Amino acid sequence: MKQIRGGVTAAKGFLASGMHVGIRKNKEKKDLALVWSERMCAAAAVYTTNKVKGQPLIVSREHLSDGKAQAIIVNSGNANTCTGEAGIAAAKRMAALVAERLPVKPEDVVVASTGVIGQLLDVSVIEAGMDSLVAGLSKAGYLDAREAIMTTDTVKKELAVQFELKGKTVTIGAMAKGSGMIHPNMATMLSFITTDCAIDQPLLQKALSESVRRSYNRVSVDGDTSTNDMVVILANGMAENPIITSLDDDYQEFCEALDWLNIQMARSIARDGEGATKLIECVVEGASDEEKAEQLAKGVICSSLVKTAFFGADANWGRILCALGYTRNDFDPEKVDVSFESASGFISVCKNGAPLPFSEEKAKKILSYQEVTVYVDLHEGDAQATAWGCDLSYEYVRINGDYRT
Amino acid sequence: MKQIRGGVTAAKGFLASGMHVGIRKNKEKKDLALVWSERMCAAAAVYTTNKVKGQPLIVSREHLSDGKAQAIIVNSGNANTCTGEAGIAAAKRMAALVAERLPVKPEDVVVASTGVIGQLLDVSVIEAGMDSLVAGLSKAGYLDAREAIMTTDTVKKELAVQFELKGKTVTIGAMAKGSGMIHPNMATMLSFITTDCAIDQPLLQKALSESVRRSYNRVSVDGDTSTNDMVVILANGMAENPIITSLDDDYQEFCEALDWLNIQMARSIARDGEGATKLIECVVEGASDEEKAEQLAKGVICSSLVKTAFFGADANWGRILCALGYTRNDFDPEKVDVSFESASGFISVCKNGAPLPFSEEKAKKILSYQEVTVYVDLHEGDAQATAWGCDLSYEYVRINGDYRT
Repeated sequence: MKQIRGGVTAAKGFLASGMHVGIRKNKEKKDLALVWSERMCAAAAVYTTNKVKGQPLIVSREHLSDGKAQAIIVNSGNANTCTGEAGIAAAKRMAALVAERLPVKPEDVVVASTGVIGQLLDVSVIEAGMDSLVAGLSKAGYLDAREAIMTTDTVKKELAVQFELKGKTVTIGAMAKGSGMIHPNMATMLSFITTDCAIDQPLLQKALSESVRRSYNRVSVDGDTSTNDMVVILANGMAENPIITSLDDDYQEFCEALDWLNIQMARSIARDGEGATKLIECVVEGASDEEKAEQLAKGVICSSLVKTAFFGADANWGRILCALGYTRNDFDPEKVDVSFESASGFISVCKNGAPLPFSEEKAKKILSYQEVTVYVDLHEGDAQATAWGCDLSYEYVRINGDYRT
Repeated sequence: MKQIRGGVTAAKGFLASGMHVGIRKNKEKKDLALVWSERMCAAAAVYTTNKVKGQPLIVSREHLSDGKAQAIIVNSGNANTCTGEAGIAAAKRMAALVAERLPVKPEDVVVASTGVIGQLLDVSVIEAGMDSLVAGLSKAGYLDAREAIMTTDTVKKELAVQFELKGKTVTIGAMAKGSGMIHPNMATMLSFITTDCAIDQPLLQKALSESVRRSYNRVSVDGDTSTNDMVVILANGMAENPIITSLDDDYQEFCEALDWLNIQMARSIARDGEGATKLIECVVEGASDEEKAEQLAKGVICSSLVKTAFFGADANWGRILCALGYTRNDFDPEKVDVSFESASGFISVCKNGAPLPFSEEKAKKILSYQEVTVYVDLHEGDAQATAWGCDLSYEYVRINGDYRT
């Protein structure tokens, strides 16, 4: 498996485009993206578990109910959520605008929106830009598309990998937006994955669901599960590998590539959390089962007090034990070890739940790096899980204290 | 019922003192408090549900297992938590130091600590100050005691109320510390309540547990449930009211006074959350049951995105719906109404889950006050619940980015 360039259009038969149509006031910021596959795709998705679901999600879920799709239209600047019937009509209209210009039925178009909640989306500005958007579809269009889906993101999130299946080159590419309101639960922020792999739709859904559990669902920026989280994968089969129809070696290889890609995407979303100055990775090991390890790791990266301590590069490990404790998982606090690691080195600060003498200076240096790993060993079994988050900074407060204006 | 001065020593027979002994470096900051009742008290408590429990809690729970106590010793500056066997010995020694100087057994002394987690507590400095601390016991001592238990608190939290029971005046007083790591769950931050009411211990425990559920347990500052949360009530019977032994009118009256006091204390803890510039009160009404209303109200006040929006006085009600949605409670998002109220006025911003036109200027003015109430109406039943929180500010990040140094 190797990493390649090209993001969401890296796989055969996929084109994309992105532009500013005017949903956002800032003309420098692209706000509408389109992804198109030359052939009909097997499609799978996972959605937010938030009881309040964005209108585009409701429409996309309906469109994807037959396991097929050929296009994705996404706008930023307005989430089209909590907008009632008018919002449903707006989301359907977005799909129709694509179908009027490309050989595709509206029901095979996925619709997604991200931005402010609770404001009606003006579809007329989208309509005005549609001809240019469709005309702009190209292999290089991934560059504009990845930009058009960003909100407070500061870094473009995309990736593509290639691997061989029975002598055929298979590619998987993706683009995502993250930043704030990030605490995916059985779903995720917006992430769009394209592949030319030939794979049966039920297996595509299975591979996606399992991969999401180990990647996006282990990220948290602020504990707020969005109303619009969605991961979609489109597989058009143009790699011409023998179609994957069972849980065989080919399926495993596909899953391995998909997992790697999704975990990298998840890490980049955490790293670019709103206001974040660093990525916090928490590895809980020596657990009796993976689910417990996952809950504990997420507990650590979600704690406001842990997050602010990391912002201050303060080795306040007591807060890590406190956060583990309130996840309500059963473990023996007097067996817990805690260590920190970064490019600067490794340091153990707690053994058997009690303080170890350590150099504050060395700890500060380790915690000052941009990627820091917390190791928690429960000493009760062999299971482990990793979760990703970011620190809580002044900048998070600034961004979110005045988001709408 | 009327509010009076005197805090934790307002009730008959209670004395207190507080002083700086040297647990903290800053000599201006008192760090040790003692509360003493002339007579043995019926005692009840609720504790943190965090799996990691502070050593003082473990010792206090043992001491309170017989439902009796006569003294409380509390230090700030060090939580004596994650300190292993040495920490248990330190907490027991604190009780013994009281018993060596007052007519009380160590097992009738409640021990509490608050401050940094994971550092050994040096009991020798407490021992050195004990004679002065005991000599300082007085009615006016509540002034020093309330100060000695504070950490990053900026406001002293105390209250006392009086009411009549069968011609006898009964008093309940309290002092508390709050500020950070505040997300009590079936327990609370440190709060010490004293009363001269004569009441059977099992009824005292029942009254306390139910009151805590409706007060402290509905507060959150940062979602972090502390390892050291504890509410203790001591009742010495010196009001000479006929002892309360059943769920009669006297019990109801006692509960009413206790609830009122605890809710005021809870509000003041939320209002003085670390870095808070305002109190956020969320009232969820029209719910099918109280538990759901409570979970939804807590969901709103715990959301980092809601909290930062309030800091910016931004009427971003979409975040409120989003927060309601991810509590995983069943409700119909398309029936939800949202309004804001403060001393400046009242404004409705969302009806049936969809936007209402409203004046941004008026909303900003309402949200700029120091106490703001969010009303959420589910239109599905008659139950309601209120939760209290605070905004998330730059100051919270500053305080917690560098707490230990």
